[in-house]
Amino acid sequence: MASTDLVDLRRDLHRHPEPAWREFYTTARVVDELEKRDLDARYVGREVLGGDRVGVPDDAELDAWRERARAAGARTDVLDRLDGGYTGAVAVVERGEGPTVGLRVDIDALPIEEAAGDGHHPAAAGFRSENAGYMHACGHDAHTAIGIGVLDAVLDSDFAGTLKVFFQPGEERIVGGEPMANSGHLDDVDYLFAVHVGLDHPSGEVVAGIDGFLAVSQFEAEFRGASAHAGARPETGDNAMQAAAAAIGNLYGIPGHSEGATRINVGVIEGGTATNIVPERVAIEGEVRGETTALMEYMNDEARRILDSAAGMHGCEVAVGTLGHAPSARSDPELRGVVADVADGTDGVTSLLESDRLGGSEDATFLMRHVQERGGKAAYVGVGTDHPGGHHTPTFDVDEDTIGLGIDVLAGAIAETAARRP
Amino acid sequence: MASTDLVDLRRDLHRHPEPAWREFYTTARVVDELEKRDLDARYVGREVLGGDRVGVPDDAELDAWRERARAAGARTDVLDRLDGGYTGAVAVVERGEGPTVGLRVDIDALPIEEAAGDGHHPAAAGFRSENAGYMHACGHDAHTAIGIGVLDAVLDSDFAGTLKVFFQPGEERIVGGEPMANSGHLDDVDYLFAVHVGLDHPSGEVVAGIDGFLAVSQFEAEFRGASAHAGARPETGDNAMQAAAAAIGNLYGIPGHSEGATRINVGVIEGGTATNIVPERVAIEGEVRGETTALMEYMNDEARRILDSAAGMHGCEVAVGTLGHAPSARSDPELRGVVADVADGTDGVTSLLESDRLGGSEDATFLMRHVQERGGKAAYVGVGTDHPGGHHTPTFDVDEDTIGLGIDVLAGAIAETAARRP
Amino acid sequence: MASTDLVDLRRDLHRHPEPAWREFYTTARVVDELEKRDLDARYVGREVLGGDRVGVPDDAELDAWRERARAAGARTDVLDRLDGGYTGAVAVVERGEGPTVGLRVDIDALPIEEAAGDGHHPAAAGFRSENAGYMHACGHDAHTAIGIGVLDAVLDSDFAGTLKVFFQPGEERIVGGEPMANSGHLDDVDYLFAVHVGLDHPSGEVVAGIDGFLAVSQFEAEFRGASAHAGARPETGDNAMQAAAAAIGNLYGIPGHSEGATRINVGVIEGGTATNIVPERVAIEGEVRGETTALMEYMNDEARRILDSAAGMHGCEVAVGTLGHAPSARSDPELRGVVADVADGTDGVTSLLESDRLGGSEDATFLMRHVQERGGKAAYVGVGTDHPGGHHTPTFDVDEDTIGLGIDVLAGAIAETAARRP
Amino acid sequence: MASTDLVDLRRDLHRHPEPAWREFYTTARVVDELEKRDLDARYVGREVLGGDRVGVPDDAELDAWRERARAAGARTDVLDRLDGGYTGAVAVVERGEGPTVGLRVDIDALPIEEAAGDGHHPAAAGFRSENAGYMHACGHDAHTAIGIGVLDAVLDSDFAGTLKVFFQPGEERIVGGEPMANSGHLDDVDYLFAVHVGLDHPSGEVVAGIDGFLAVSQFEAEFRGASAHAGARPETGDNAMQAAAAAIGNLYGIPGHSEGATRINVGVIEGGTATNIVPERVAIEGEVRGETTALMEYMNDEARRILDSAAGMHGCEVAVGTLGHAPSARSDPELRGVVADVADGTDGVTSLLESDRLGGSEDATFLMRHVQERGGKAAYVGVGTDHPGGHHTPTFDVDEDTIGLGIDVLAGAIAETAARRP
Repeated sequence: MASTDLVDLRRDLHRHPEPAWREFYTTARVVDELEKRDLDARYVGREVLGGDRVGVPDDAELDAWRERARAAGARTDVLDRLDGGYTGAVAVVERGEGPTVGLRVDIDALPIEEAAGDGHHPAAAGFRSENAGYMHACGHDAHTAIGIGVLDAVLDSDFAGTLKVFFQPGEERIVGGEPMANSGHLDDVDYLFAVHVGLDHPSGEVVAGIDGFLAVSQFEAEFRGASAHAGARPETGDNAMQAAAAAIGNLYGIPGHSEGATRINVGVIEGGTATNIVPERVAIEGEVRGETTALMEYMNDEARRILDSAAGMHGCEVAVGTLGHAPSARSDPELRGVVADVADGTDGVTSLLESDRLGGSEDATFLMRHVQERGGKAAYVGVGTDHPGGHHTPTFDVDEDTIGLGIDVLAGAIAETAARRP
Repeated sequence: MASTDLVDLRRDLHRHPEPAWREFYTTARVVDELEKRDLDARYVGREVLGGDRVGVPDDAELDAWRERARAAGARTDVLDRLDGGYTGAVAVVERGEGPTVGLRVDIDALPIEEAAGDGHHPAAAGFRSENAGYMHACGHDAHTAIGIGVLDAVLDSDFAGTLKVFFQPGEERIVGGEPMANSGHLDDVDYLFAVHVGLDHPSGEVVAGIDGFLAVSQFEAEFRGASAHAGARPETGDNAMQAAAAAIGNLYGIPGHSEGATRINVGVIEGGTATNIVPERVAIEGEVRGETTALMEYMNDEARRILDSAAGMHGCEVAVGTLGHAPSARSDPELRGVVADVADGTDGVTSLLESDRLGGSEDATFLMRHVQERGGKAAYVGVGTDHPGGHHTPTFDVDEDTIGLGIDVLAGAIAETAARRP
Repeated sequence: MASTDLVDLRRDLHRHPEPAWREFYTTARVVDELEKRDLDARYVGREVLGGDRVGVPDDAELDAWRERARAAGARTDVLDRLDGGYTGAVAVVERGEGPTVGLRVDIDALPIEEAAGDGHHPAAAGFRSENAGYMHACGHDAHTAIGIGVLDAVLDSDFAGTLKVFFQPGEERIVGGEPMANSGHLDDVDYLFAVHVGLDHPSGEVVAGIDGFLAVSQFEAEFRGASAHAGARPETGDNAMQAAAAAIGNLYGIPGHSEGATRINVGVIEGGTATNIVPERVAIEGEVRGETTALMEYMNDEARRILDSAAGMHGCEVAVGTLGHAPSARSDPELRGVVADVADGTDGVTSLLESDRLGGSEDATFLMRHVQERGGKAAYVGVGTDHPGGHHTPTFDVDEDTIGLGIDVLAGAIAETAARRP
Repeated sequence: MASTDLVDLRRDLHRHPEPAWREFYTTARVVDELEKRDLDARYVGREVLGGDRVGVPDDAELDAWRERARAAGARTDVLDRLDGGYTGAVAVVERGEGPTVGLRVDIDALPIEEAAGDGHHPAAAGFRSENAGYMHACGHDAHTAIGIGVLDAVLDSDFAGTLKVFFQPGEERIVGGEPMANSGHLDDVDYLFAVHVGLDHPSGEVVAGIDGFLAVSQFEAEFRGASAHAGARPETGDNAMQAAAAAIGNLYGIPGHSEGATRINVGVIEGGTATNIVPERVAIEGEVRGETTALMEYMNDEARRILDSAAGMHGCEVAVGTLGHAPSARSDPELRGVVADVADGTDGVTSLLESDRLGGSEDATFLMRHVQERGGKAAYVGVGTDHPGGHHTPTFDVDEDTIGLGIDVLAGAIAETAARRP
């Protein structure tokens, strides 16, 4: 079972859910916790993100969230270091000779309005989201708490080697993984673990190494035509609404692929100004996925052609941009074996799966691939938790006992990895 | 030429453009002007609007606009009378025996960002819109000034009868005409004039009676399905985005009608929450039009069926509501004749058209029909004005000399109508 | 009332309906009739068609229809002159000094299966179509009989001038008018009449000059992609079916035009080979129309862009060709006046309309424009007939008394035109 | 290597390709061969098909193919037994005590025009298809020859048990498997083999047991609305073309399923009569597939709803029928093991795969399931062949040495099965 402190931390984070690049309160809260501990190094903001970022909101949006974090009690000195929406942190523990082991946890939340009824535990227990329209509906609050807890466990052990815990922003938008992978902090990592709670596994069940990550690429497309008075001069318009509708209808019609699963979704749309004006602008956001990165690229190529053609069909232009993206990746069997062995001997683990397929996407894959490409190994560990509502729904919640179990399994696996060097 | 005061009034209104049911500053400013004059009656707010209203924003939105009006100097006592977004006013002049003649002017503005360059006169002359994203891009500021100017002209004349000037809100959204027609103030009107500047007619040109109003009905449709994780469980979603796209594509495909012009437009769309979530909600707003009310109804019936089918096609439901609407109407030839005779003898009128077709819609038609159904007559008068940009574009502006010319023609027509009783 | 011979002729033609460029029996039958009369000239086949033709079937199809005509009793010597599907004829009567007056009648039939029930007069009276799937469902059988009858009437009168009767093929496909207009035989025509029965006008009603012909252009579009096994390798196909569906959906969505009526239709589709093969070829045929030729061209331009874009959207190519087409045209008021005067004094005419709008298309407009561009005048005369079913439906039929009335009006108008030279 | 006779047989069949329920020549030719051999029973026509059949052509079509078969030399007495398109045959060899072993080969051909160039061996060697537009482009000619060859091999061996060879019609349309499964002849089969050549495996390679059959269901949908003159009265039509286009566009948009591969295709379309008539009828044929029968049913349910909604959207009705269909199935590991063992010791086998995934559909699955549901076992054996063009393409051909190799492997497996009773 997790300490009361970690449950409190999780609930505090749960009350302050923040989306990608706006994890101001969350990062400040993490830094608070790190400073309480005897770490060898702490990095935050620009220090933990390399290369370009996508999906960064405009300054007004960033300022609003930062002010909200300040009002909620976040430390001003930390907030200053997150200027520009450079959120996230890395904690380092160096304990003599040994391999460098990483643990990645994600810290961001979702644009979902949390359930308010008494049947929803966070509401009944008084830690429902205070940020209207946003919610920790995927358990990243628990992940963050596990990250802190693992630091404690390792600090309290005879671990030999270096531990780095990556508090990654922007997983839900698939925008944080690549910059963090490119930060340099992963370059010397020999073994990397990532962790996710739930995923339809009940409390007590552990998945040693998850596979089946779909490669994903998110896009935004802005159709631009020419407005016109819809009653008096309809023929002079170039209708961005028709272009968008043609695009959507046909995007979903990209044929499946014989080599594996593919997906497409248009998740957001917005455009037009008035009923009597032929719309000159409609913007959509969507994503393509594939069981492999190649399959995702196939979908992407098809989608681009359809977007272009739909625009041209209605005399419009379309500007297409890439938002978040992530490759596929695999858990290494050796590291998976370590986790399985540790989990097998951990109190509270009642069911153990060697492997499972995610079926979704994750930008932990950027970090996993970064390590694997340099000769290291990676495993994505699932820690089951009873969750009343599904992931990404308003009634999602976690069994808080999972936090302690996750810490035990991961700290155990980190120790064993260092000892065994699989 | 209009007096300096009326030009100042027009410019003041131009600086404070307000959309439907939010004409707080505008109404307060009109009431200011009415109180300066020796009128027999003034009505405002709930007194000038009968029956139900559609398209009323929520309280937060109304409050924000009312506060803005107050901050811009609107009188608090008047604002209080406009509570709930009951905007608009009616002025009455009673001058002995004679017919009751009405003049309707509309006072609302459009959600268009006004041009800022020096080439745009209001910007160069310092009276560009101060309400970001809104603009008097259709000349209703000039209409309002004409309404006040006609009151002055009639007060200063030997007019015998009753004059009512209707300052109508919400024309652009086609929501103000019906409530004002149902206010009771129109019930005893024998002759009604409405006025519009511009419409691609140059300064100096007058159209005695405009026809060709398309009947219009605006709709909103909210598609509701079921969200799902787009990567992990796409099959469990009922995709409101696909439903909306199918609807849009097919709505534009409603066949033309052999009996006259029809129109359809989907002008606004919004929906979905994230790229990786199958959208459970997409809302659209649109409109149908017809050369006659029957043709508009044909389009409406077709549109409803398509909306329903598109929803069902993707396992969704759709809630369809009616927003603004307006019937078609015709200017009466007799009243048109009066205008033509007067305009023919008015200084500054350099070109005279008996009639013209609008090709768009107008909810003045509610007032016209209300009068006509009770045995009265109506004419919709066009007063040309050189306008650099088209109506409903960011560079629209009026030739301010038009205000005076409009007053001369309309006050003359009102006097002649009372004298002649056509 | 028409002579028994002409009713017999009409019924014989009704039994042998033939579509565009396949009017073998019909032309041969007309030539039979012409040879019985004391004409000054007769032209047939290539002699009456100039320039290129579109919509000509392949040789196998032509041969099959020619054989059918031969089997039905058509003269072999005439059939030989129609080789290649060059159908149609022109008859000339020269009677001294005077203007050259033309009468155009169309002779082709439609691909409609005729009603067989006793309620359908041709079926009950034994002259139902013998060509399965084809039918004179637009009255061209009556038009042809009127053409012969007018020849008789003029031959039997003191007409001074030249009369040319044009028996035009391929009106229903809008393919015969242009070649006949370019044949040279129209070059010296001073006055041209065309005639149509029915058009929702009852027996006894005459329309002196019909207007409102929509300009039309028919197109064929063949989408070509790449086939693939739909189960095993769907991603390798370029799906012509999806391209065609996208095209159709969006073609119908071309916005109406503020300057007048427009139309679009995709009337025929065919493609694909098996359920399990991604279709590599789908072909459509359709048409665009406009109240003016310019409006038709607007529709055509929009349609071409949509066809191209829809093909490209699905990795296909599209070959677009023009089939039949026809411009708009107007009846000249002077010539209309002559018809009205004559009809007004004709026995059996119980109702007279100066004008009416067709709302459809006609390639008589090619002949009318050809004459008008050379300084001549043209009128398209409507002769009402009670028709139980609508035009182009399986139960269409004509009141045979209309034939005689049509002859009286047209022969009268021809005589009066020559006498009066309007 | 196959005997010259069997190569001659394969080439004779190749010259006379026949599609589903029209395998008149093929069946007659098979019966010829069966009668030459010392069999214990032969069944043909109605004797080998139980229950209802789908996809049967009309009598005119059947008669035409039967006449063609007769003209090509098929025996009239056999053709008489195939009346109504009841094609196919079953051969039985009884050799004492032992299990009943079945071999299923399919005999039909595809609607593909065979390549004619010298680079295509059948063309160069003089046995190109003589049935224009049809072709053995999937190797069923070789399968049929293998079926005969296996009979010879078993007759010539000390096999103990019963062998049944099923010459199944209509595999390409997925219409022959179910009736043959329901014929009764499968009820006592203990072990069933099916065979397919090629499938991208080269000559010399054998796949012991193929899996991954997609369940499939083919549908036909006829949209019926109301025709109208597209120019004069477009609003009176209910446009079946728009309905079909809306259906197609949205059918392809059915989302993929998280539990496995799904497919959809609209393979054939036909409808409408003329460019100027709003189409009242458009018919499509298509198919849905799924990695499991449940997934196929998911697709089918979605498709039905879309078809219904698309019809209703445009005021049409749609009649949906099921054409061919087939479930998924799996090769039994035990029987696969027998094949692997035999192939491993067969001359000419240069490569052996235990298993492979088909990725397409096959109605051998009906026979396999029929046997498996009764406690028997089944394996679908792949025999590689170098094929210059892909399956279902105009340049497909087989390496004729494959026939002999296939006979060796299958006859060996049959013998071994009987001996071993796995």
